[in-house]
Amino acid sequence: MPDIVEVVQEIAEEMRQRPDRGEVATYIPELAGVDPNQFGLAVIDTEGHVAAAGDCDVPFSIQSVSKVFTLTLALGKVGDRLWSRVGREPSGSAFNSIVQLEYEHGIPRNPFINAGAIAVTDVILSGHKPREALGEILRFMRFLADDPAIAIDEAVAASEQRTGFRNAALANYMKSYGVLENPVDYTLGVYFHHCALAMSCRQLAMAGRFLAQRGKHPVTGLSVVQPERARRINAVMLTCGHYDGSGEFAYRVGLPGKSGVGGGILAIAPGKASIAVWSPGLDASGNSHLGRIALEALTRRMGWSIFGA
Amino acid sequence: MPDIVEVVQEIAEEMRQRPDRGEVATYIPELAGVDPNQFGLAVIDTEGHVAAAGDCDVPFSIQSVSKVFTLTLALGKVGDRLWSRVGREPSGSAFNSIVQLEYEHGIPRNPFINAGAIAVTDVILSGHKPREALGEILRFMRFLADDPAIAIDEAVAASEQRTGFRNAALANYMKSYGVLENPVDYTLGVYFHHCALAMSCRQLAMAGRFLAQRGKHPVTGLSVVQPERARRINAVMLTCGHYDGSGEFAYRVGLPGKSGVGGGILAIAPGKASIAVWSPGLDASGNSHLGRIALEALTRRMGWSIFGA
Amino acid sequence: MPDIVEVVQEIAEEMRQRPDRGEVATYIPELAGVDPNQFGLAVIDTEGHVAAAGDCDVPFSIQSVSKVFTLTLALGKVGDRLWSRVGREPSGSAFNSIVQLEYEHGIPRNPFINAGAIAVTDVILSGHKPREALGEILRFMRFLADDPAIAIDEAVAASEQRTGFRNAALANYMKSYGVLENPVDYTLGVYFHHCALAMSCRQLAMAGRFLAQRGKHPVTGLSVVQPERARRINAVMLTCGHYDGSGEFAYRVGLPGKSGVGGGILAIAPGKASIAVWSPGLDASGNSHLGRIALEALTRRMGWSIFGA
Amino acid sequence: MPDIVEVVQEIAEEMRQRPDRGEVATYIPELAGVDPNQFGLAVIDTEGHVAAAGDCDVPFSIQSVSKVFTLTLALGKVGDRLWSRVGREPSGSAFNSIVQLEYEHGIPRNPFINAGAIAVTDVILSGHKPREALGEILRFMRFLADDPAIAIDEAVAASEQRTGFRNAALANYMKSYGVLENPVDYTLGVYFHHCALAMSCRQLAMAGRFLAQRGKHPVTGLSVVQPERARRINAVMLTCGHYDGSGEFAYRVGLPGKSGVGGGILAIAPGKASIAVWSPGLDASGNSHLGRIALEALTRRMGWSIFGA
Repeated sequence: MPDIVEVVQEIAEEMRQRPDRGEVATYIPELAGVDPNQFGLAVIDTEGHVAAAGDCDVPFSIQSVSKVFTLTLALGKVGDRLWSRVGREPSGSAFNSIVQLEYEHGIPRNPFINAGAIAVTDVILSGHKPREALGEILRFMRFLADDPAIAIDEAVAASEQRTGFRNAALANYMKSYGVLENPVDYTLGVYFHHCALAMSCRQLAMAGRFLAQRGKHPVTGLSVVQPERARRINAVMLTCGHYDGSGEFAYRVGLPGKSGVGGGILAIAPGKASIAVWSPGLDASGNSHLGRIALEALTRRMGWSIFGA
Repeated sequence: MPDIVEVVQEIAEEMRQRPDRGEVATYIPELAGVDPNQFGLAVIDTEGHVAAAGDCDVPFSIQSVSKVFTLTLALGKVGDRLWSRVGREPSGSAFNSIVQLEYEHGIPRNPFINAGAIAVTDVILSGHKPREALGEILRFMRFLADDPAIAIDEAVAASEQRTGFRNAALANYMKSYGVLENPVDYTLGVYFHHCALAMSCRQLAMAGRFLAQRGKHPVTGLSVVQPERARRINAVMLTCGHYDGSGEFAYRVGLPGKSGVGGGILAIAPGKASIAVWSPGLDASGNSHLGRIALEALTRRMGWSIFGA
Repeated sequence: MPDIVEVVQEIAEEMRQRPDRGEVATYIPELAGVDPNQFGLAVIDTEGHVAAAGDCDVPFSIQSVSKVFTLTLALGKVGDRLWSRVGREPSGSAFNSIVQLEYEHGIPRNPFINAGAIAVTDVILSGHKPREALGEILRFMRFLADDPAIAIDEAVAASEQRTGFRNAALANYMKSYGVLENPVDYTLGVYFHHCALAMSCRQLAMAGRFLAQRGKHPVTGLSVVQPERARRINAVMLTCGHYDGSGEFAYRVGLPGKSGVGGGILAIAPGKASIAVWSPGLDASGNSHLGRIALEALTRRMGWSIFGA
Repeated sequence: MPDIVEVVQEIAEEMRQRPDRGEVATYIPELAGVDPNQFGLAVIDTEGHVAAAGDCDVPFSIQSVSKVFTLTLALGKVGDRLWSRVGREPSGSAFNSIVQLEYEHGIPRNPFINAGAIAVTDVILSGHKPREALGEILRFMRFLADDPAIAIDEAVAASEQRTGFRNAALANYMKSYGVLENPVDYTLGVYFHHCALAMSCRQLAMAGRFLAQRGKHPVTGLSVVQPERARRINAVMLTCGHYDGSGEFAYRVGLPGKSGVGGGILAIAPGKASIAVWSPGLDASGNSHLGRIALEALTRRMGWSIFGA
């Protein structure tokens, strides 16, 4: 088995030199202004060893990667009843498509497309004020990552809110079918804020450890979720975690993963490691271009694909 | 680790007793007449040990399970050029949907929906007569399963051909975009015939071994495919192998698998086992009802999920 | 030629007696509570003679019939530039469908589906406060109908606003494509209010006269629109005025017409008459059930179809 | 009223000089090779006067214009039962789209899109051999046009048959839903042949007279269809006759009309005239570019719009 520290260093160096860096998201100025030359990678194995390289300590906007954690919270809150509000099938369409909602009575296909994540946020919000729900999400992230410094980038949240008409369309559409319980503005407010979480690769890999370790939080030994639920969250990440590029990610990388438009990806090698990678440039499906390539290199060299050695 | 022989026996017994058996496919008389009370299960580990129970030696129509093997053959023939003719993303729609073809210029989403498998068949056919292509497929199946008795059920093939208007629509549609190279009737003829392969669970599990063993044929030690290709075929099975129930199968079973409308499923536990299950009754997505339940029980008891122990 | 006064009386009497009355819209209490036994009909010929019967003086919520008048106003304001914001093709889908918007970059298919009428409202609003825009619409209706008593039903408007999530989805979706210029809430506010105009059949037939008379306002002799524009508005009414029942209406009635979910229909016999009919029960396409039947009887008996005597 | 002979001459001259001529259809060599500089126009009023100009006697492939006549024949054969096999709503999609068929259980939206015309052809064929059905269609055209010289261009029919995979997809798709009764090849054979009718503008305008004259055949005085049916066929032409450009045609021209990919259009001014125009270049919706412009000029100068003087 190759040495993970060396592999991580090598990959970071290779990625630093590549000319193809994808296209940085431009829909809000806070993302459009990010330097595309950045690249970070952090791997934490089940014994807690960290291998990190590049811009692994630079915080970035985790955006949709937050959906893994809100799914976990919502499942903790309402259990399998969640699945009456959102499906768990790949969508076969773009992250922000509304077509599927019309054909399927306002029920989003899975918790990782925008509509589904908004429905999940609505579940977390229920019975709370937006500020309380956000507080709960933030505490959960700090606990998982064992880092009280994690915070929301308010400028990003404000920009999302100002320009998020497509998400408002999705939310209002679901509301018209009774899929959302709370006022649309409340649910969207919480959604825009948790997408604006700023975290480094190191923090993100820390937060994802429970999914690699049968649901256990390694520092406290507490069970974040039961082992079966950890497996199932991983399964949804594998089939739905990269929008309409999920098949491609499974084919090339072979790990459950969730991407965000900020260029971050959280990937899980079950029983082996929690991995976070970040490079701001995106591919045509809206997933980190170099992030995916780096993960492909990592799983190949480490033999970590879940589809066989 | 529980004893696999006992687990297989237990599951077969549990499935025998369940009252819920799904609905047998009715579109051709040869399938409509199959007794829904049948259930077979066969598991072959990487050392060649077989655990089998129930109707594990009764041949059934493998239907779309054949698509795993035609994909393997086509990749062997043209390599990654295959992916210009067919995608590898989940479709988000039914196995026989034509809508996606119109929106995506006649390129089917993946090799496991009907349109995709017809395109794959067209690749195998190219440069050959239908009879030769079928002979090649049949020899491949017999070699993989190490069993020269495997044959095509001609009555099933004839019925498919007589009633297969929806598949003819898909094929003609792709032909109009130049995605098929051969005469539509030739390609459909080969397609209907390889879907009519009759195999038992034991034979099917034997044929699938190379996908659990880094691409190696265990009897001869020959490489059927390179390890990376075996992983990738498994990845496509995971994301696309159960039509619009692929997410559900990943969520519950946690193994790459491919189902057929005859009630069979081939599932792969990479590095551990090749598994075939059969029960003719289908669920709403067209996948074997008890087959999926049996596989869920098997992976849970054996701890074989690829998404974590 | 049969006597129009007699024909109108006969039809009103026939409609009064029919047991099949369709289903009253139930999405807001103000519509759900309307008595389905009501029926009104008013016909005004080009010489100003009025033939009216039944509940022809009972005000009802004109709903989408208002879209004929807002289209007229918007064309007056920006002329043919309007057609860069909205198309003029039948939609082939339901009045509140959002699917087409996704496939056609946020441009609604025509000004008579909800999305299109919201876009038209946005054009009228531009440069004004919502209150001013509404005032302009109201003055226009009073001028056309020569009746200063026409008013908006504020209870209906408030209910629409409280429950109009689907329209909010459409508006936000278009806003995300830049098709709307004003704040979404402003545009929706004006839209919900002009749909809540309460008018009787007599008032509505009066308001529609210019479309039957080459664009002229008969009382003042002023030109509301040029003759060509009157023809073109009639053409859009014919092809798009009854949502996904437009073909059926053309086939059976043979007149340009626009329906509303309150059960009203305005129909135009060019060069002959302006016609308003009202019966609250709707058919499966959301158009007045008896209204359509009454108009079919009227055009047949009077020989008024635009498709031949 | 302007003199129709002069108007027709003027328009033909104007069209001859225009540089914008659209794009000739290229899917078969017989159409691709047609000279785009040709333009013909023929107008026949209800008294039998003919005004014709340009290439009004050059035969061209009438293609989908034939669908007006097959609809008439099928209605004569099975009456309103036809409407259980095909709808009469605009499709909101391209002439050869298959998407709508999937969402609406194989029932085409109207008799003028390809799928609908194939279903109509199947009705004419029922109980006959293809040769007999074709003979019936041909006799009907010769009778209507009072011209025994009308014939099918066999080279065009053969080319259509050789390349008509998209139509074969539509036909097989409908067959899978039981919407077609005859063997797919038979129905398609008749369809391809009647689309290959070669007629001049003069012949086509002659054939369309009954639709302008309350269903009467002017030469024999026989009733081709009842007046109500003539009106209804005109209504379907208005709403569906130009594929996804039907709204545009109604808006600009204001007459019922049916276009063909060969560049011909038949238009009806009810009670006034039957009009045929031909220019091979097409616009983006697949309708004759100059044909539509010529008809717009004609109706404006003659005041023939059905939507008002």
